[in-house]
Amino acid sequence: MVECFNKISQDSECHAVVISGAGKIFTAGIDLMEIGSIFVMVEGDDTARKAWNIRKKIREYQETFNVLEKCPKPVIAAIHGACIGGAYPKLIALLAPVPSLVNELTFTARKMMAPEAESSGLVSRVFQDKETMMQSAFDLAVEIASKSPVAVQGSKVNLVYSRDHSVPEGLKYMAAWNMSMLQTEDIIKSAQASLEKKTPKQITYAKL
Amino acid sequence: MVECFNKISQDSECHAVVISGAGKIFTAGIDLMEIGSIFVMVEGDDTARKAWNIRKKIREYQETFNVLEKCPKPVIAAIHGACIGGAYPKLIALLAPVPSLVNELTFTARKMMAPEAESSGLVSRVFQDKETMMQSAFDLAVEIASKSPVAVQGSKVNLVYSRDHSVPEGLKYMAAWNMSMLQTEDIIKSAQASLEKKTPKQITYAKL
Amino acid sequence: MVECFNKISQDSECHAVVISGAGKIFTAGIDLMEIGSIFVMVEGDDTARKAWNIRKKIREYQETFNVLEKCPKPVIAAIHGACIGGAYPKLIALLAPVPSLVNELTFTARKMMAPEAESSGLVSRVFQDKETMMQSAFDLAVEIASKSPVAVQGSKVNLVYSRDHSVPEGLKYMAAWNMSMLQTEDIIKSAQASLEKKTPKQITYAKL
Amino acid sequence: MVECFNKISQDSECHAVVISGAGKIFTAGIDLMEIGSIFVMVEGDDTARKAWNIRKKIREYQETFNVLEKCPKPVIAAIHGACIGGAYPKLIALLAPVPSLVNELTFTARKMMAPEAESSGLVSRVFQDKETMMQSAFDLAVEIASKSPVAVQGSKVNLVYSRDHSVPEGLKYMAAWNMSMLQTEDIIKSAQASLEKKTPKQITYAKL
Amino acid sequence: MVECFNKISQDSECHAVVISGAGKIFTAGIDLMEIGSIFVMVEGDDTARKAWNIRKKIREYQETFNVLEKCPKPVIAAIHGACIGGAYPKLIALLAPVPSLVNELTFTARKMMAPEAESSGLVSRVFQDKETMMQSAFDLAVEIASKSPVAVQGSKVNLVYSRDHSVPEGLKYMAAWNMSMLQTEDIIKSAQASLEKKTPKQITYAKL
Amino acid sequence: MVECFNKISQDSECHAVVISGAGKIFTAGIDLMEIGSIFVMVEGDDTARKAWNIRKKIREYQETFNVLEKCPKPVIAAIHGACIGGAYPKLIALLAPVPSLVNELTFTARKMMAPEAESSGLVSRVFQDKETMMQSAFDLAVEIASKSPVAVQGSKVNLVYSRDHSVPEGLKYMAAWNMSMLQTEDIIKSAQASLEKKTPKQITYAKL
Repeated sequence: MVECFNKISQDSECHAVVISGAGKIFTAGIDLMEIGSIFVMVEGDDTARKAWNIRKKIREYQETFNVLEKCPKPVIAAIHGACIGGAYPKLIALLAPVPSLVNELTFTARKMMAPEAESSGLVSRVFQDKETMMQSAFDLAVEIASKSPVAVQGSKVNLVYSRDHSVPEGLKYMAAWNMSMLQTEDIIKSAQASLEKKTPKQITYAKL
Repeated sequence: MVECFNKISQDSECHAVVISGAGKIFTAGIDLMEIGSIFVMVEGDDTARKAWNIRKKIREYQETFNVLEKCPKPVIAAIHGACIGGAYPKLIALLAPVPSLVNELTFTARKMMAPEAESSGLVSRVFQDKETMMQSAFDLAVEIASKSPVAVQGSKVNLVYSRDHSVPEGLKYMAAWNMSMLQTEDIIKSAQASLEKKTPKQITYAKL
Repeated sequence: MVECFNKISQDSECHAVVISGAGKIFTAGIDLMEIGSIFVMVEGDDTARKAWNIRKKIREYQETFNVLEKCPKPVIAAIHGACIGGAYPKLIALLAPVPSLVNELTFTARKMMAPEAESSGLVSRVFQDKETMMQSAFDLAVEIASKSPVAVQGSKVNLVYSRDHSVPEGLKYMAAWNMSMLQTEDIIKSAQASLEKKTPKQITYAKL
Repeated sequence: MVECFNKISQDSECHAVVISGAGKIFTAGIDLMEIGSIFVMVEGDDTARKAWNIRKKIREYQETFNVLEKCPKPVIAAIHGACIGGAYPKLIALLAPVPSLVNELTFTARKMMAPEAESSGLVSRVFQDKETMMQSAFDLAVEIASKSPVAVQGSKVNLVYSRDHSVPEGLKYMAAWNMSMLQTEDIIKSAQASLEKKTPKQITYAKL
Repeated sequence: MVECFNKISQDSECHAVVISGAGKIFTAGIDLMEIGSIFVMVEGDDTARKAWNIRKKIREYQETFNVLEKCPKPVIAAIHGACIGGAYPKLIALLAPVPSLVNELTFTARKMMAPEAESSGLVSRVFQDKETMMQSAFDLAVEIASKSPVAVQGSKVNLVYSRDHSVPEGLKYMAAWNMSMLQTEDIIKSAQASLEKKTPKQITYAKL
Repeated sequence: MVECFNKISQDSECHAVVISGAGKIFTAGIDLMEIGSIFVMVEGDDTARKAWNIRKKIREYQETFNVLEKCPKPVIAAIHGACIGGAYPKLIALLAPVPSLVNELTFTARKMMAPEAESSGLVSRVFQDKETMMQSAFDLAVEIASKSPVAVQGSKVNLVYSRDHSVPEGLKYMAAWNMSMLQTEDIIKSAQASLEKKTPKQITYAKL
């Protein structure tokens, strides 16, 4: 995975910040060549038993991505790095919302530079250098952290849910979710702060 | 809702026309702070009974958006306005097709200006002033109104259905739908008008 | 269909290459006016029997698009052509990932030029002339053909599956699929070639 | 609908109590012959416009069943009646959990007597006479009414949801639902009553 | 398949009539031992290529069952036969609506006699001898054939659709389907026949 | 859970064997009164934070049932016991395939005796005494254990998958699954044993 993002900026000095947590990404396929080498060694008395063990490994591998969205707190990905190289295809399609691009990347495994990652919406911003990127990532983290954790973490749960369901299903779940969440003290705190002309960062919300 | 679109153009003189009716928007979450104040007052003998009443309110609130897509006629949103302001977060993510943008807007609740709304595909066009926008919106309405209502309203029903289903499901429903709709007189009228070199606006279709 | 793509470049000398096989396209509706003329002649003793036969025709018509994605090999669409003309609307919305554009195209049936097709992600590239386009299409075909057919065709099956399912469903299916596919000899061949500093095109994979 | 249940006991003196609210019933089709007569008169300038109005009527008709499950309170159906008769098919399949029976009833439209309705699980009980049935229905209503409305009505919402979703989806929704509902005072009341050796009917729960 | 049904009555003189076309049957698994022998011989240069060809065979094999439900006319299965025997497991679970039975049959592959097939709802009726069974099957076919083909075949399409969708989805599809189907002449014919005291078999419906 | 099954046979000397692993059971609701007492003590600074912790507990609680189906080996439940008693409702609906029974049990929380548990398909068999039940459970375990683990465990994975998906989805997944599984040596072993007139228990399959 790190490998994969590194590739994005491999031949340039650009840097990217990705906010993950939702979005139909990382789902299109598996880099047969790179990941495959791990599976070549899999044990098993016959094809079926090897297959059983391969599935177990794939599910574990998939779980390393799933934790990013199971974590109720937003995850900010600040990526800096160059291509590690290699003679064969590596890149996996990450771009469900742009079908023609998904297809092209999947079948050609060509490299993608930072500017294209930005223009296609894969990363939200590209920076001039690592320091600016890290500063921006930390600023973003601080900003999000200043808000109600009930609002922030509840939003992430619902964003992930909405991505995997139709609009009416997403609305129905959100209604059930907010039956309790809209009874939070944070709404009153926030309203009060607003009357007192306080900024969000001056409000202290209880931990979640 | 009006609030929310107003924000789009708050610090500028730009104006936007949005054609709604389909598109995975308005689904990601609820603006806890703004809407929450309505829910703070909810009645109920205990947490569960308050929750029951909150759900009723949320479903009513969601219904105000659902009517836009239940209405079989296309709805054109011509938005002009400035930011009303306020010390706390308001904006909700509206942009499912651009995951990284959805995430950023959801968690930061930052403002979005008209140019970004246009470049991200949230609104279809931005205008120099209110008059141009309103004229354009009316022109669009007139153009759509000149077409077969069987085609226009049937398309809206199928657009909304397709958004909430997989491609094969969308195709199956469209086939059932058109079993009757393709028996409309409008096809013959339209073909005839074409032979007689008439423009769409010269054809009179029966009301639906 | 050919009609429809022709329209894209009708008033210009631009050319487009589309890689199909996945992507929520071609699903939004049917061009009532153009296709309708075929259905006007449909036989049947009453409305229900005509409807039954219309459905059969629609399903056959839909199948002509479905074969593009049922074919396990990637399909490259190189489109060159001018508008055939006609006095009434033809173009159907093809652009699910850009809701506001889908809506506008569906309800106005306006023409779309090659540059807009490119900027909206409908086509992956636009070329200066037909020769450049054809050369690029063939180069792309050759490049894809040089890769492991197990990887390429398996990726297409999974891309189409993922488009029609939620992310967790897509991951589950991909895991089942790769229980056998990751036992391919192609991984070893590819790794060996990499050690020997060969390019992908120097590896010969068995036919699938 | 009344028609349909009446048929169940047409040639006997048996009576049935059905608890509705969930269960895949009433979904398989429409009695073309009986209901059809209503639709024969539908207005509309052409086939498509008639179709549009027919759909509106069907949706209204379906809504008369949907209200039974939208109503958060359990609905008890106490059915007593004889067959009205008629020369053409009326009965529609109501029995999704018994596929071979669903098929037979759908295609033959044969009558179903009370004993078969009971043995197939369509009705929960059959009684010797109308008075026993009505008494039993009221007893059941009184028993249900003595329980926590938070538990009873919440269960109905979740039963209907579970019927239309997979097991994991049903569990996820139930978890969101109970975030607030398990904070009800009714649990404490019920526990206290249990310690004091009271029966459920001696507890007074607040209205919902 | 024939094998499988034969087993049902293997040690008895009982006979069964099954009405297929809908119902969650034939889906639980594959008889590894019996069907497996066909797959053992599959060709392919490596595990992945063999897997590719196995999948092709499975999909063909599944298609032999799918045709039963794709066929718009109801299919009556009249089964008579004795157990062919064999030293290893054969029976596959066919009984989704009775989970504990599905599980037991799947994991033990034990034989199921005709009476259990009837009591569990797998077959709709068991007969004393082959002649009675065949007569009953033909009577049933004649009865179904006397009804409106628009009603019968439309019902089958909707039964299959409803089995694979939630109740609200089934209702939505049925409404779209009947937009045209309720405009059939068969309703008027049937109503007229009813007024003239004719039986269904005296009405002649146009072919579908 | 144990509580719940104990209730089944509380006033009798009957005993039940349930084969779990698939089947739409345990999904309809939560026993508010019994389980609720655990949730009453939940910590949290406000309603929303308590709700967050309640959800965590519910998901953990649900997971204790999910492990039964995540475990790829079949689970046999041999239940013996009497009712522990209690003054308030405990039983939850466990019987999705019999809607009218599900509803009645959910809303009345009445007791269910062993015979009804058997006749409704909730348990597969009821025994005269504990020893017979345990012997039968062990015999069943031994019988299942004598079969190919590739067949048995693969069947369980597919049974659970099929329960949560439509028939076409179940078939598609089963085809992907068996791409590798039908390449198992167990098929050849089993065929050979059959030729040599061996019983299943005389074959030794490799561990999975």
